[in-house]
Amino acid sequence: MLPDPLIRLIDELKRLPGIGPKGAQRLAFHLLKTPREQTDRLVDAVRDVKECVTYCSTCNSITDVDPCALCRNEDRDRRVICVVEEPQNVAAVEKTREFKGLYHVLLGALSPLQGIGPDDLKIKGLLARIGDGVTEVILATNPNVEGEATAIYLARLLKPLGVRVTRIAMGVPVGSDLEYTDEVTMHKAIEGRREV
Amino acid sequence: MLPDPLIRLIDELKRLPGIGPKGAQRLAFHLLKTPREQTDRLVDAVRDVKECVTYCSTCNSITDVDPCALCRNEDRDRRVICVVEEPQNVAAVEKTREFKGLYHVLLGALSPLQGIGPDDLKIKGLLARIGDGVTEVILATNPNVEGEATAIYLARLLKPLGVRVTRIAMGVPVGSDLEYTDEVTMHKAIEGRREV
Repeated sequence: MLPDPLIRLIDELKRLPGIGPKGAQRLAFHLLKTPREQTDRLVDAVRDVKECVTYCSTCNSITDVDPCALCRNEDRDRRVICVVEEPQNVAAVEKTREFKGLYHVLLGALSPLQGIGPDDLKIKGLLARIGDGVTEVILATNPNVEGEATAIYLARLLKPLGVRVTRIAMGVPVGSDLEYTDEVTMHKAIEGRREV
Repeated sequence: MLPDPLIRLIDELKRLPGIGPKGAQRLAFHLLKTPREQTDRLVDAVRDVKECVTYCSTCNSITDVDPCALCRNEDRDRRVICVVEEPQNVAAVEKTREFKGLYHVLLGALSPLQGIGPDDLKIKGLLARIGDGVTEVILATNPNVEGEATAIYLARLLKPLGVRVTRIAMGVPVGSDLEYTDEVTMHKAIEGRREV
């Protein structure tokens, strides 16, 4: 009963992550009501991202200039490289304002189940960067099975190159309640305990 | 730290209903990874909807031809008009395959708090349609305060025109559990009880 263009829009919206059939319909009706200038801004923003945003040839993070602003920034500590899985993880680390080094984005994590092996990740580029006076590589892959496997794999490759390899701490998140902490996290928290 | 085009896309996505800052960021990164042809289809679908979809001059439902397919369909029973608030409500009633009459979309509901009065709704057009052999108007506005107020208001306008005015039944939804039924719904369910 819906007009064809609207059905096509709902179909396209359904392909987006986290948007189901109901959500797609609600979004489509919302866009229908939205003033043309606002939908034009949305459409242009999507188009601009596809046209202007690429991956940095050094760290594989996303950027609109190559190399990216972080890689070009002379104030960053070039001796430390923080390895993350996805470009958005860079933003998560940057938010802390603690880390002053450079990044390397793997664009994924090892996952034999999904058929993602070492050759599917940006590992060669990481190894090539180790020569330039790098003293430490911080492995900040996700604290899950894939991220952990990736960290172990990278540690084995990096250590023979004479570089310090560290892994971010796993434990109970700040502000949480021990009552709701799962046993694996609790195990990591006790294992990683430190003197006070 | 994110490229400007990506920040603009996240900002535009955040304006959509039900999409918060985190969801907008996730969607933006997803669109970045999505093949260009798929994002082009999405962009074209939004543009087509804005260009081709309008409101039916008879029932105010959305359509890409005027009058809409439902209003033009000679097989529909032209003696019964089902009044709903929004175009998407037409689809909800159509799904039942029970109703064979026509529709009238108010494009809203009375809401003094939001400053929406009778003149902001498509009521004049409804009254104008009553002449054409219409024998019954089913008020299918939402079962909430605004929808109920709108139904009462319309009933007062329509009854003097000599047309039968009915309201959809309110009660416990099929498949639900009485334990979780709120008291207002339970009240409506008892009030509207029928002989078995």
